[in-house]
Amino acid sequence: MPSPMEGKILLPASELPNRWYNPQPDLPTPLAPPLDPQTAQPVTPEQLGAIFPQGLIEQEMSQERWIPIPQPVMDVYRLWRPTPLVRARNLEKAIGARCKIFYKDESLSPAGSHKTNTSVPQAYFNMVEGVKRLSTETGAGQWGTALSFACSQFGLDCTVYMVKVSYEMKPYRQILIRNYGAQVHPSPSPMTRTGSAMLKKDPDCKGSLGLAISEAVEDAATHEDTKYTLGSVLNHVLVHQTIVGLETERQLASIGAKPDYLVGCVGGGSNFAGLVLPFLRRKLAGENIRFVASEPRACPSLTRGQYRYDYGDMARLTPMLKMHTLGHAFMPAPIHAGGLRYHGDAPILCNLMEEGLVDARAYFQTECFDAARLFLRTQGFLPAPETSHAIKAAIEVAKEAGPDENVVFLYSGHGMLDLASYDAYLKGELTNFELPQEDIDGALQHCPQV
Amino acid sequence: MPSPMEGKILLPASELPNRWYNPQPDLPTPLAPPLDPQTAQPVTPEQLGAIFPQGLIEQEMSQERWIPIPQPVMDVYRLWRPTPLVRARNLEKAIGARCKIFYKDESLSPAGSHKTNTSVPQAYFNMVEGVKRLSTETGAGQWGTALSFACSQFGLDCTVYMVKVSYEMKPYRQILIRNYGAQVHPSPSPMTRTGSAMLKKDPDCKGSLGLAISEAVEDAATHEDTKYTLGSVLNHVLVHQTIVGLETERQLASIGAKPDYLVGCVGGGSNFAGLVLPFLRRKLAGENIRFVASEPRACPSLTRGQYRYDYGDMARLTPMLKMHTLGHAFMPAPIHAGGLRYHGDAPILCNLMEEGLVDARAYFQTECFDAARLFLRTQGFLPAPETSHAIKAAIEVAKEAGPDENVVFLYSGHGMLDLASYDAYLKGELTNFELPQEDIDGALQHCPQV
Repeated sequence: MPSPMEGKILLPASELPNRWYNPQPDLPTPLAPPLDPQTAQPVTPEQLGAIFPQGLIEQEMSQERWIPIPQPVMDVYRLWRPTPLVRARNLEKAIGARCKIFYKDESLSPAGSHKTNTSVPQAYFNMVEGVKRLSTETGAGQWGTALSFACSQFGLDCTVYMVKVSYEMKPYRQILIRNYGAQVHPSPSPMTRTGSAMLKKDPDCKGSLGLAISEAVEDAATHEDTKYTLGSVLNHVLVHQTIVGLETERQLASIGAKPDYLVGCVGGGSNFAGLVLPFLRRKLAGENIRFVASEPRACPSLTRGQYRYDYGDMARLTPMLKMHTLGHAFMPAPIHAGGLRYHGDAPILCNLMEEGLVDARAYFQTECFDAARLFLRTQGFLPAPETSHAIKAAIEVAKEAGPDENVVFLYSGHGMLDLASYDAYLKGELTNFELPQEDIDGALQHCPQV
Repeated sequence: MPSPMEGKILLPASELPNRWYNPQPDLPTPLAPPLDPQTAQPVTPEQLGAIFPQGLIEQEMSQERWIPIPQPVMDVYRLWRPTPLVRARNLEKAIGARCKIFYKDESLSPAGSHKTNTSVPQAYFNMVEGVKRLSTETGAGQWGTALSFACSQFGLDCTVYMVKVSYEMKPYRQILIRNYGAQVHPSPSPMTRTGSAMLKKDPDCKGSLGLAISEAVEDAATHEDTKYTLGSVLNHVLVHQTIVGLETERQLASIGAKPDYLVGCVGGGSNFAGLVLPFLRRKLAGENIRFVASEPRACPSLTRGQYRYDYGDMARLTPMLKMHTLGHAFMPAPIHAGGLRYHGDAPILCNLMEEGLVDARAYFQTECFDAARLFLRTQGFLPAPETSHAIKAAIEVAKEAGPDENVVFLYSGHGMLDLASYDAYLKGELTNFELPQEDIDGALQHCPQV
């Protein structure tokens, strides 16, 4: 009889966690508050109420360690959760690892990534407060897909502003979003004042994430029945993602194992945080669990950014957050891992980073695609370009790890809609972007002085 | 605590079946033998040896009820198996079903469909006999993907002849195949005499499945180290697919349920057969388990074909098989479910059909896409166009089923690489093809007179 270590480590449906973990009461130093972009004063819940529902604002600021998952959210989670924890035995062999490598498979969600863990509760908490429509932006398309799925589950309308260059380069993403019943507009669009103004100035404008955020926020702010949603960075998003680490903890316990390394890729930081945060108290209590964050060398906010207040978006519409930032005006090189092209990181993650609790590493995209191909040819599955950064870091960590150690990485999404990137990779067309220090220094000059 | 009926019904890794079921000893009437295309005499194992390895030829002709799954095949199966059986509660609600609906999720394999259940053992049995390279054809691309994955697992080279129109229309498929390390040639190709001759005649030829089969068979027949593989129809393929039904039987037993309806789509018939065959003995023993096959009205081999000997391919290179056929010269309309565009069906399935053990139904593609969209918006996942035929039939059956009955359908693959079809659907560009009787009569005139 095969041991449970052989392949997939499953969690019975009955053991799906029914509460999220909120790290705020356990942080060694309290979180710096978000500041109003105009006044530089701490943002009040009332101010946030213009674009977010109360249920999510409460979670954003909560000091409760455990937050119950509402039954309707549990019911939707059950469409794909619990997800398997998988022993990557073939990968271990291929790299000659002495340790064990496991991956937590979040690619199995309807939208193909971890993003649904937060899109579902975000749609739910809006729905219960009578919101009829959600607006959001999407770059690579993962978040727009996840939100449109969640809205289809709770009967909400959904409007996605998709950066025009992605809309055109990744037609499959917007087709999927529309099949969920959502509206998707290439941004800049004529649907908003911001978009119209840009189109008037430059009818051929290919858009940017900053511009798409502005359109989505304007849409929510100018329609009574509409709220705005964000797929990463914010505290409540990270809280929702802890379902990943909570399941992982139970799965490891079921085989009598403890994690020595927890590895994930970082764009805004929500998937990484979702994996590691549930282990924070054990780490603080002295267990030797290392949190390893992997980011692109082309957008190295954790490894080369400054820890300071900055805006969340290029247009300076969002509150200022204290985080590791390359500057909100920083324009990352066009790497294929579009989800990792963000100038800052989640405040909770940055707080832990400052405490020395996170080991951050940065990699070139070609070495990450090499790691992805190795994963494909050994474990069989095609990772998203973002996920390839987690695989690369896990491989490096596994080479350092001892024979009795366990490396667990987060497999955040599949690459079925990213095959154009793999085509470029096979053709040798990928470029590595090493970021000159003067580019970072230049972008940081535009940060607010608070 | 939620009941196991709430979501996914998992099978522990330790319960992965370690043998396949071979229905041949249990068929009420023996299978009609395959006939040599030249002499019309029963084909000998020696003749098949030119293109298939002995291990698979033995399975093709075996009268043993149980065939052990070799350990190396089990090890690869464990990369994604056992697959979940999922209660489709949201779909039940949406259609007002009184019965329960379950689906067996074969979309979770590395290649995204059930095809890997047979590509893995086919690669393995070739590898152990010293074969270095496998050749095959692929139309929509599912089979080529599955075989290239399997070859990457066993260190075999792999050459895929992909119908040129698919190669061009579905670039993601061939990119994925190449990332697994396989060679993929648009067919007609200059790699074979058949392909070269066609290119000389018509340099713009877009290819056909019949032509691609001819190229793949020629490649295997003219290279000592190369064998040919087929992804459906043949007995050994169906035997490998029984892993699906065997797992399903254990999963239903784990919740104390029996299946009343087993539903699948039929192209060549391997996924449908894989689900139903393990229940054959129970059905023959008197249990009221209905086998419901769903096919396109544009290619209705089971519902409107003749049961007779016919060639497996347009070029008449393969043995003649006794099956329900629309005639090997039949050219199906260009429906989006490319995997269901086959003129015949697996002989084992047709044998059961003749015994009155299979209820076959045919549907238009738009009603199947309607069913797929309903599934997407309720259960969250995007089905392949082929799979949408199973969903449509399951919905129809569920409306007829009693309140204590269980409908189980096979979710054969995801649609992430078929989004162009969903775009056409959303735009209202899909056509329904009702097949005139004279087209069938005309194609049947070319069948061999044996």
